[in-house]
Amino acid sequence: MKVVALTGGIGGAKLALGFAKALPAQDTAFIVNTGDDFEHLGLHISPDIDTLVYTLAGQAGLVAGWGRRGETWQFMAALEELGGETWFRLGDKDLALHVMRKQLLAGGATLTAATAAIAKRLGIATTVLPMSDDPVRTVVQTPTGALAFQHYFVRDRCAPPVTGFAFAGSETARVNPRIEAALDPAPDAIVICPSNPFVSVDPILSVPGLRELLRACGAPIVAVSPIVGGRAIKGPTAKMMRELAIPTTAEAVAEHYGDILDGFIVDEQDASAADAVRSLGLATRVAQTVMQSLDDRTELARTTLDFAASLRKGVATGRG
Amino acid sequence: MKVVALTGGIGGAKLALGFAKALPAQDTAFIVNTGDDFEHLGLHISPDIDTLVYTLAGQAGLVAGWGRRGETWQFMAALEELGGETWFRLGDKDLALHVMRKQLLAGGATLTAATAAIAKRLGIATTVLPMSDDPVRTVVQTPTGALAFQHYFVRDRCAPPVTGFAFAGSETARVNPRIEAALDPAPDAIVICPSNPFVSVDPILSVPGLRELLRACGAPIVAVSPIVGGRAIKGPTAKMMRELAIPTTAEAVAEHYGDILDGFIVDEQDASAADAVRSLGLATRVAQTVMQSLDDRTELARTTLDFAASLRKGVATGRG
Repeated sequence: MKVVALTGGIGGAKLALGFAKALPAQDTAFIVNTGDDFEHLGLHISPDIDTLVYTLAGQAGLVAGWGRRGETWQFMAALEELGGETWFRLGDKDLALHVMRKQLLAGGATLTAATAAIAKRLGIATTVLPMSDDPVRTVVQTPTGALAFQHYFVRDRCAPPVTGFAFAGSETARVNPRIEAALDPAPDAIVICPSNPFVSVDPILSVPGLRELLRACGAPIVAVSPIVGGRAIKGPTAKMMRELAIPTTAEAVAEHYGDILDGFIVDEQDASAADAVRSLGLATRVAQTVMQSLDDRTELARTTLDFAASLRKGVATGRG
Repeated sequence: MKVVALTGGIGGAKLALGFAKALPAQDTAFIVNTGDDFEHLGLHISPDIDTLVYTLAGQAGLVAGWGRRGETWQFMAALEELGGETWFRLGDKDLALHVMRKQLLAGGATLTAATAAIAKRLGIATTVLPMSDDPVRTVVQTPTGALAFQHYFVRDRCAPPVTGFAFAGSETARVNPRIEAALDPAPDAIVICPSNPFVSVDPILSVPGLRELLRACGAPIVAVSPIVGGRAIKGPTAKMMRELAIPTTAEAVAEHYGDILDGFIVDEQDASAADAVRSLGLATRVAQTVMQSLDDRTELARTTLDFAASLRKGVATGRG
């Protein structure tokens, strides 16, 4: 089976690792959110690409859930002495990736090429595709004004209430051309990983033409709910939903994605939500979606592939 | 007394520290070689400015003689994993300075302004002046072709024999405008520190008009010999002299500097060279120039100031 998965931060990377373990490398491709990329200290930071790459390479930080394992912070301490900006923590080892990426970009490489070069060096054989090589920047709207994503997310620790989102640059951004190749021939499944719908997945779907490409290839599109038992496993998804007056339920996420989906996976804790999701006209699968161990990740990947296969064969109900 | 000193690498920084200890901060200014600056990993590296700044801040590495005290190398290890260029070793703490400088330069600051901002943050009250804000790049000529300075110095460890030097960009470089201010009113002494004549001091003197500015202010100009007992304390000075068929003697250095000098300080080990230097028409002082302790640095600074004062009063012979 071949899978193409859309992924953002930590939750998405966990399931992506599951796919990478469950399938041969050449049968997986990941479309990654670059809406929270930013220029910082003269470097190009791609947090979601980095989270995915470090996760696939087995080098992701275990405690913080981001950055690199065994990280040290001498650079940050020295930068603080010099009066530099320290609200975004760049570890000494992590910094090497950012310096190398900036060097590749400055030399004329696309973000896709720079990502591929870095992934290769880290021993990653799966395909990691930024959603676009053009800049798309997530802007978080709040009652007191718009915030660049990392200012909202890291500097202000998601404290400001959100009223909406914008994806600056998305009007003119072009879909990463390698995404079309990854969809032809159509994969057996397109998966929206359990990432934040508003700031991880929506930026990807905001790139003109990408949504249509996904639908047109004919592969079943399934999402894994990022909401479990009324809460997000990690990050501000549930907080955002409350602030946007959206119920913090799995079915509300399914409704948010709307007609791009064929199927939706809810957690065992939300088995009662399955009927509500079905009433949206979506095929539904109830599964263990909380990924603590590596086995959890692989198991959820297999379940997701099995669910998508069932949709392809027309066994389950849904729009297909 | 006020002093303006020309300095390059480690030997120069040692004597500069002596001046900084011997005199109030506002009475010292250092003109620093930028001929070995280079762009590396997307950063602007200014090795001689950094050596001076770290030395004055008490943060210079004690063992290597360069970089920062208590340095760590996580960044380099990670960069190596990623296949990056690692021949030039940038420590985790040191890197903060380079990132901050690049950010300041990218924001439109001159190298002088960036240097001043960094020096201030490190608690340095003395004036540190790059010789020029325009790029001048030392090129080392060898039988097999020209080498960028850091390729010769660091990557190739000074192994290639030298046949000459060029200072690319020096034809059009403008003297740092703050140097003129530092020379008006004239200081009590202009000192050429015991730096490498060919790749530390000559690049400074290659900036059009700088030599004339130094002479025109009327201050006595004295150099401290970088050659002691036929050898350089550190670095490739003596090796270069041999390769250029110049005797590795103090008097050969004095002759190399030529008529910019009023006086020349030779080490106690070279007392016999004093007559040869005098025969060049230069006032001469014999002193302990090997600087091991901080006291050695301050003592040599005081001796140098005293020597210059004697020239100013016309006590010693020389061209003044």
